[in-house]
Amino acid sequence: MNEFEIIRRYFTRATDDRAVEIGVGDDAAVLRPDGRIVVTIDTLVSDVHFPADAPPDAVGHRALAVSLSDIAAMGARPRWCTLALTMPGADSDWLEAFASGFYALAGRFGVSLVGGNLTHGPLTVSVEAIGTLPAEAAPLTRGGGRPGDDVYVTGTLGDAAAGLACLKSRGETSAQADVGALARGLVTRYLKPTPRVEAGHALSGIASAAIDISDGLAADLGHLCRSSRCGAEIDVDLLPCSEALRSLFSVSDVLRFALGGGDDYELCFTAPPSAAERVAAALGATGTPFRRIGTLTEKPEIVFLRGTERVEPPVPGYLHFA
Amino acid sequence: MNEFEIIRRYFTRATDDRAVEIGVGDDAAVLRPDGRIVVTIDTLVSDVHFPADAPPDAVGHRALAVSLSDIAAMGARPRWCTLALTMPGADSDWLEAFASGFYALAGRFGVSLVGGNLTHGPLTVSVEAIGTLPAEAAPLTRGGGRPGDDVYVTGTLGDAAAGLACLKSRGETSAQADVGALARGLVTRYLKPTPRVEAGHALSGIASAAIDISDGLAADLGHLCRSSRCGAEIDVDLLPCSEALRSLFSVSDVLRFALGGGDDYELCFTAPPSAAERVAAALGATGTPFRRIGTLTEKPEIVFLRGTERVEPPVPGYLHFA
Repeated sequence: MNEFEIIRRYFTRATDDRAVEIGVGDDAAVLRPDGRIVVTIDTLVSDVHFPADAPPDAVGHRALAVSLSDIAAMGARPRWCTLALTMPGADSDWLEAFASGFYALAGRFGVSLVGGNLTHGPLTVSVEAIGTLPAEAAPLTRGGGRPGDDVYVTGTLGDAAAGLACLKSRGETSAQADVGALARGLVTRYLKPTPRVEAGHALSGIASAAIDISDGLAADLGHLCRSSRCGAEIDVDLLPCSEALRSLFSVSDVLRFALGGGDDYELCFTAPPSAAERVAAALGATGTPFRRIGTLTEKPEIVFLRGTERVEPPVPGYLHFA
Repeated sequence: MNEFEIIRRYFTRATDDRAVEIGVGDDAAVLRPDGRIVVTIDTLVSDVHFPADAPPDAVGHRALAVSLSDIAAMGARPRWCTLALTMPGADSDWLEAFASGFYALAGRFGVSLVGGNLTHGPLTVSVEAIGTLPAEAAPLTRGGGRPGDDVYVTGTLGDAAAGLACLKSRGETSAQADVGALARGLVTRYLKPTPRVEAGHALSGIASAAIDISDGLAADLGHLCRSSRCGAEIDVDLLPCSEALRSLFSVSDVLRFALGGGDDYELCFTAPPSAAERVAAALGATGTPFRRIGTLTEKPEIVFLRGTERVEPPVPGYLHFA
């Protein structure tokens, strides 16, 4: 199979999106957005962002998920994507599984793959996601938070980092059947994160600021606070953590994963207390669990509290080139 | 320097494009297109698409150029781009030069870098380019050619492939001063190709089909013919080749580079004979050299002729996973 055969066989599927005027197969795709567009690019590198032996359907899923998560964090609706896939060889089983993971997630959120690039080299996957935002809607930036705003997160935190830890110590965790089933749930959260697409879109016009949690709550809330020029007080007892995480790991590990672990792709967002009911209604309508975990403050510092006692923040989020 | 410092220092420059509502620094960029958008992604991998020791400003230039070329080949105007840069380390001299090459080309064509991603791994650069196309303009697809249409190319062919050959045999070519100067011109065409941005835009509404020449004329004309469901007769004596190419290489090498060599990023396009004057006027206005090299035919086969004698086509264009 050369690159053109691979594209035809695995990456050319019809779309019913009538806004796609030209899709895969020409020099570029031609799309008709209604309103503004929201664009982001993310890269996964083998052995940096996922284990080299990760299931290929998970690699396909995850590569798209991380970009959709960024679109969601802007309050936009993802519509289209392009895929730049660099791989060391053309293995049809791998490609079949990769494409099935990729298209399954794309189909779930009505996203069309409209173009891409296939090259030979070390396994690296970049996905550009393109969303649309109606002319009247304000984007959900990181910089709109104000002191006094409530700080919220969707879902549960720390599962993905714990899942990665389970993967790394594979054998130990899967030796016990009960633990194995719980651990598998965490591993799935790491390998196949679900971007909060509906939640992000629902929060547009309600939340004051938002960011997706890819580097860990402490790091990503830090970005939000810096952009919003304020600080935050977070009650660590309010952090939403799954039963699986709590039952498999010690209290200190749970805290470390929840604050410092990346890859959850939950949303962290803020809203004034007066918007609390609208937040609940919007997220309730999309079936998204969420929890208020603290408050933005004037002082530009993030303080983690257990009751009135200060908890030292864990290691910062993942840094490339740290 | 961690990734955030690198982004702040090297990849955050103000844009005067008022259609950029949010640029670098949030979860995603927010842009206001006027009309349709045209999107493409391309990846350069070290030691596959460029020598690992290529000057970093050339890597930055080239990574953007190849994507702008695709936008040009659709007849659209490039406006914005995102950059996914994966690199093994954070070397400030390298980054400074890479960014300067990237921004110099972007500035020349009024393209704003609006977002990106920086990760640790083997040197790989993906650029998504986003162009706009007015509502009334037809995109320049590969599939609009009809039998009887003239086949044209812009600029000269084979220089980039010859430049790469010079790079590979470095030392031999630079030993002679005169030859060295000519060879340097070819090497520059390889390392810093100029995408035919104005020409592509000018041909919108005039040309019947277009493709950019990244894999070699024989291969890319093949794509155009397949999409247009026709063939072509090409007069190899009409192929435009530079003085430098002709003076440094044998007749057979010249033909091999001109037909089989990729990386020129010239445009190959077609137009009915009745449009010949409009083609000349449009390209003349942009100062783009061009030449008619043949005709599209009904029979789905590409024939290369020298006078009435058939010339065997050279090796096909570059194929990943061939």
